Amino acid sequence: MKNSGTPIFIFLLIFGLNKAQKSEKLVQYVNPLIGTEKMGHTYPGATAPFGAIQLSPETDTISYEMNGKYNGDVYKYCAGYRYEDKTIVGFSSTHFSGTGHSDLGDFLVMPTVGKLQLNPGTATHPESGYRSRFSHANETAEAGYYKVKLDDHNILAELTSTTRVGVHRYTFPKSDQAHIILDLMAGIYNYDGKNVWTYVRVENGNTITGYRQTNGWARTRTVYFAMTFSKPFKSYGQKNYDGKQVYGGFWRKFDQTKNFPEIAGKNIKMYFDFDTNENEAIEIKLAISPVSQANALENLEKETGNLSFDQVKTQTQEIWNKELNKIVIKGSEPEKTNFYTAMYHTFINPTTYMDVNGEYKGLDQNIHKAEGFTNYTTFSLWDTYRALHPFFNIIQPKRNGDMVKSMMAHYDQFSMKMLPIWSHYANDNWCMSGYHSVSVVADAIIKGNYNGDAKAALKACIETANKRDYEGIGYYIDKGYIPAEKSGTSVSNTLEYAYDDWAIAQLAKHLGETEIYNQFIKRSENWKNNFDKTVGFMRPRLADGSFKKDFNALSTHGQGFIEGNSWNYSFFVPQNPDELIKMMGGKKKFASKLDELFTMHLPDEFFADTEDITREGIIGGYVHGNEPAHHVAYFYNWAGQPWKTQAQIRRILEMQYKATPDGLGGNDDTGQMSAWYILSSLGFYPVAPGSEDYAIGSPAIDHAVLNLENGKTFEIEAIDQSPKNIYVQKILLNGKEIKNFTLKHSDIINGGKLSFYMSSKPRK
Amino acid sequence: MKNSGTPIFIFLLIFGLNKAQKSEKLVQYVNPLIGTEKMGHTYPGATAPFGAIQLSPETDTISYEMNGKYNGDVYKYCAGYRYEDKTIVGFSSTHFSGTGHSDLGDFLVMPTVGKLQLNPGTATHPESGYRSRFSHANETAEAGYYKVKLDDHNILAELTSTTRVGVHRYTFPKSDQAHIILDLMAGIYNYDGKNVWTYVRVENGNTITGYRQTNGWARTRTVYFAMTFSKPFKSYGQKNYDGKQVYGGFWRKFDQTKNFPEIAGKNIKMYFDFDTNENEAIEIKLAISPVSQANALENLEKETGNLSFDQVKTQTQEIWNKELNKIVIKGSEPEKTNFYTAMYHTFINPTTYMDVNGEYKGLDQNIHKAEGFTNYTTFSLWDTYRALHPFFNIIQPKRNGDMVKSMMAHYDQFSMKMLPIWSHYANDNWCMSGYHSVSVVADAIIKGNYNGDAKAALKACIETANKRDYEGIGYYIDKGYIPAEKSGTSVSNTLEYAYDDWAIAQLAKHLGETEIYNQFIKRSENWKNNFDKTVGFMRPRLADGSFKKDFNALSTHGQGFIEGNSWNYSFFVPQNPDELIKMMGGKKKFASKLDELFTMHLPDEFFADTEDITREGIIGGYVHGNEPAHHVAYFYNWAGQPWKTQAQIRRILEMQYKATPDGLGGNDDTGQMSAWYILSSLGFYPVAPGSEDYAIGSPAIDHAVLNLENGKTFEIEAIDQSPKNIYVQKILLNGKEIKNFTLKHSDIINGGKLSFYMSSKPRK
Repeated sequence: MKNSGTPIFIFLLIFGLNKAQKSEKLVQYVNPLIGTEKMGHTYPGATAPFGAIQLSPETDTISYEMNGKYNGDVYKYCAGYRYEDKTIVGFSSTHFSGTGHSDLGDFLVMPTVGKLQLNPGTATHPESGYRSRFSHANETAEAGYYKVKLDDHNILAELTSTTRVGVHRYTFPKSDQAHIILDLMAGIYNYDGKNVWTYVRVENGNTITGYRQTNGWARTRTVYFAMTFSKPFKSYGQKNYDGKQVYGGFWRKFDQTKNFPEIAGKNIKMYFDFDTNENEAIEIKLAISPVSQANALENLEKETGNLSFDQVKTQTQEIWNKELNKIVIKGSEPEKTNFYTAMYHTFINPTTYMDVNGEYKGLDQNIHKAEGFTNYTTFSLWDTYRALHPFFNIIQPKRNGDMVKSMMAHYDQFSMKMLPIWSHYANDNWCMSGYHSVSVVADAIIKGNYNGDAKAALKACIETANKRDYEGIGYYIDKGYIPAEKSGTSVSNTLEYAYDDWAIAQLAKHLGETEIYNQFIKRSENWKNNFDKTVGFMRPRLADGSFKKDFNALSTHGQGFIEGNSWNYSFFVPQNPDELIKMMGGKKKFASKLDELFTMHLPDEFFADTEDITREGIIGGYVHGNEPAHHVAYFYNWAGQPWKTQAQIRRILEMQYKATPDGLGGNDDTGQMSAWYILSSLGFYPVAPGSEDYAIGSPAIDHAVLNLENGKTFEIEAIDQSPKNIYVQKILLNGKEIKNFTLKHSDIINGGKLSFYMSSKPRK
Repeated sequence: MKNSGTPIFIFLLIFGLNKAQKSEKLVQYVNPLIGTEKMGHTYPGATAPFGAIQLSPETDTISYEMNGKYNGDVYKYCAGYRYEDKTIVGFSSTHFSGTGHSDLGDFLVMPTVGKLQLNPGTATHPESGYRSRFSHANETAEAGYYKVKLDDHNILAELTSTTRVGVHRYTFPKSDQAHIILDLMAGIYNYDGKNVWTYVRVENGNTITGYRQTNGWARTRTVYFAMTFSKPFKSYGQKNYDGKQVYGGFWRKFDQTKNFPEIAGKNIKMYFDFDTNENEAIEIKLAISPVSQANALENLEKETGNLSFDQVKTQTQEIWNKELNKIVIKGSEPEKTNFYTAMYHTFINPTTYMDVNGEYKGLDQNIHKAEGFTNYTTFSLWDTYRALHPFFNIIQPKRNGDMVKSMMAHYDQFSMKMLPIWSHYANDNWCMSGYHSVSVVADAIIKGNYNGDAKAALKACIETANKRDYEGIGYYIDKGYIPAEKSGTSVSNTLEYAYDDWAIAQLAKHLGETEIYNQFIKRSENWKNNFDKTVGFMRPRLADGSFKKDFNALSTHGQGFIEGNSWNYSFFVPQNPDELIKMMGGKKKFASKLDELFTMHLPDEFFADTEDITREGIIGGYVHGNEPAHHVAYFYNWAGQPWKTQAQIRRILEMQYKATPDGLGGNDDTGQMSAWYILSSLGFYPVAPGSEDYAIGSPAIDHAVLNLENGKTFEIEAIDQSPKNIYVQKILLNGKEIKNFTLKHSDIINGGKLSFYMSSKPRK
């Protein structure tokens, strides 16, 4: 942490951060640039833990369509920033971290000097617009802080953030033509018509408020904002790109382009003019709210008040430090960088979705107050039910309980009475398959982290799992599988539903609901209906019960899968590996099949099917860059060959996670990839969330202390661990040997010590 | 009142309406069809006094544009309904009364049977859509109640309303294809792109909520609604007319067209299906809110609860009756119809703009709570400052004080810090000229009807009057007039500003602010700067001080006027008739000029300039259908020829107000025309609001009792009054003769008796 010498402010004491002072300075190991190149889709900008604001640079604003056709490049810009790019167009307030689809990019701010230009210009000719060249040599990214020199304008741009307020600092050269542009048309995954309505009100000489309403991945979404400038603007203006306004007549009584405080339209850009001295810094605070401009102003006031940029930066980095200190590891600097950057990435999403006064907008479009919990959004559940939420059940149990409460609020407020699938900003976009919120709900309740009404939560799970009109659920219930004629993802859906049903069964058992348990444990066996014993693979099945001809286990598309071929999905029975092994011909055959998965060559034609990853995102035919096989390396444990789990886990950790901008082999997926990294490098993994068991792999760090919320600590040591000593010889839990390669959740939560004895030789 | 036999419900006692039982049944004299033909622009549907809901039939939904060009017919449909038309397209919840421009028409509901059709069809071929033929023979319009038979569907449609809830009752034939269509694309003064966003949520089998957001005359406007059906729909559906939705992919996981409860888009129509028995009535309650769906539901519950259609109708008509009893007249049935319909029209606007819990959305787009007052909107101030608000100062003083509070809230919440010009739904459309809110504010305060901070109100008036960028105010302040080069309405603006400044001066004097008084009384003389003594007319003046050449006092356009030529506007010095008379060459010349105005012939080419009126809307060159000369007939009093005032007033009353659908010679202008009628037929008129004086004319009714809010009564008798006996011989106030043809406001408010002695001969 660069500003370790900065005095700790009085307000830190108020925030109860005095403890953090004694913590290790772990924030120095976070490198937000990791994952910003190629397929990681992370962003390098400033955010607070689980912050509502993600203030980060955009290197381009690509439209979904170009010349009337889908523009494939838009996909690359999910995070707004690509490390490969040479120019920056501005700094916007909201970003997803590591997603494979996108939205957001609200309130793009860009400082410039010289002639006012309201268009961004092109990457090849940045001087044709407001954008600027930049160089990585002049760029710094830390947890909660980002800095870059904008070469074309000779402006130093710095960003920091609290939970709901982004703070910008732009240090200008001397100029009588300094501008700060607020491009309210810019956005991520933009298309013509996405901007539904924009409203801005100039409150006074240095404060504006307003909102931006979009029809994007979130179909009905409004973000309110309040923005203050440390220096009053000398003038301001707007340009409206709506074209003809039939009713504009009366508004034409004013010149609305200059110094006119009431601004509204579908497509609007604004600018603010300043005279600046050499090295004069202008600070901007931009708060957002899901509810109103008044709430945005209150957020701004309550969170940043009179704090300077430097004070906010120090405060936020102390908060990050406190969060990162929840796990203290020993290791090399690169190991720490990888580990704490992964922790940083896991602590970005889900994001806070309520104002300081507790208010938020629900799916019913009404304003609600979160009573006794923090309301969250940005649930990428197909990804995160696997390792991110289980990780939170260990290290962020309070937040994870609140996330379940947020999911229950979603359910309660949604006209469809469904738990979220992929939700953000009071919308569900239903991206990907399964109804994996039930796994998160079950896991949190079973692990004792939910203090709400558990029976109501079970009811919500059941209701969600019985939405017959959703994604073939009706067929699944009636036939035990989804006919291939009825769905393009018939097999993966069936497999995921079967696991989810098992999670519901576990919750029902936990709550003593035997009848529900029996019903859902039976449904959880539906995976068998897609298993073709004659070929040994999960295979699409037709309505008449026959398996689909023209089957190719290497292909994803047209075979009933999504983001994974049958080779990967055939192992998707996390809830019952033993039965799967039996079906696949016993442990030996099963292990050989796993061997083949990790060593095969995936021909280019099939790699092309595999979305969202680079060639580096696969190992043999095992696709780590996507999620469906994230548990598969641990299956060697069940096949009686745990040393192969150990070897593969270490191989994946080494190959798939590098401390470089292009270090992630696939989208970080709002922290799922990073959570996999953390858990696996600690030596265990939740193969089937909803179970209290963790499968043991191979710890990749020498020593770790988990500082649990209940005040206890769980210590992990990996004696003699090294890149060569990847094999586990012995495991002691509080001095007592573990032989089944299984750790219980209670083993961790009760505190204690887990000792791995490592060696370069597999213990067979 | 048709349902005079209906038992009074218990709840009426709760509402304190027991007094109304003893009132005269005046509601029977209201005919809402008056003004629905030709230029009156009133609507025939159901509304409560000053109600937020105006539930009324639409006979067409005309677009602002047709084939890319302005469609002149749209103007005719300001009120949605035209008596001339033969078909009805549906019943929408919001309407202006008597305006010359428009907006609204939210939530068009139409019941149909047979094949579902979601387009309205054409007037010539109603069977091509959901519309229906109807006949005036099957139509009834009362205060708070409307009924019509829809011939094509054999459905009886009935409407009634509380303040915030419209209640529909549709009596169906037997059908297994009965539908209720909710056309959320329909609207008044529609154009492509006006519908910004629409959201609907099906809450359960008979309740929906949602909102409609438009960019119309109100630039940024959202109306929330909640709607219940007395019978659950058997199915429902929607059609989205947005065309391509780039992000629609994930939403396609569902069939959204049928029984899908989450509906959003820019252009949406919905329908609800029913099986009906012969004569089965389905009741709909549709509540609106400016704030939220939750508030709309609360409005619905609090205002109508379990009340049936008939109960709401009875209750609302009792409330109307109570309001109408504020003036009890004696007269013939046609006189009473005219009088009470005029009162009905004056008690429609401004409209209530807050929920039952006091919340409303402000111009700052935030939610505010009206503390201790009712918040109103729909301020057509260029019209209504003249007689409507002065009338309220007599008969609705509490409401008028609240209206001033609403205007002050507008000022406080508006980024521009201006009092309203023409405002509705938390927007100002700045229609017409002047800043006449200052007149309303001054008049209310001077007459003791404002219990807010009077000095703050004065400050708001001054700030509004000093908006240099607005409509030439800067020039007006600097030069004392607006150069013709700078404004198309340079003369009328200057004249109106001068009067408004006089009103500010009166307020300042009332508050003891001598300096402000001096400043504004000086500004109030600016009318002189546009008076050309050489021609005896108000005349446009150029920046160099010279009068514009090519002057024609008969022409409006190109001469610096709006809705009135120089002949009408040259008399626009209500604040100082004596000085005007002097400038025009003395009383005799002045009276002759007035004579000429009332007897001249206005050639067709100049009539065409005169907007918003029919040929019947003028008398000679005097345009009563527009407002600028509304006070002019009273000017004979100042010219020493009061008998001519008396004659002209009676002539105007007779010619311009008829108890027929086409009985209004011009737009009713949210009640201004009706207020002129009421006051003038009572025998006096506020020539210069802000003064406590009323000019006395000629009472057209035999006897009236004003039941004042302070508990006193003011009795007016016109002894020997008849269509022939129009001349005032003697006036006694409480037995004491009035000789100056002036009545004081206090004379009325203190209670007492005003006796006119009428004769067929002028008393010269």
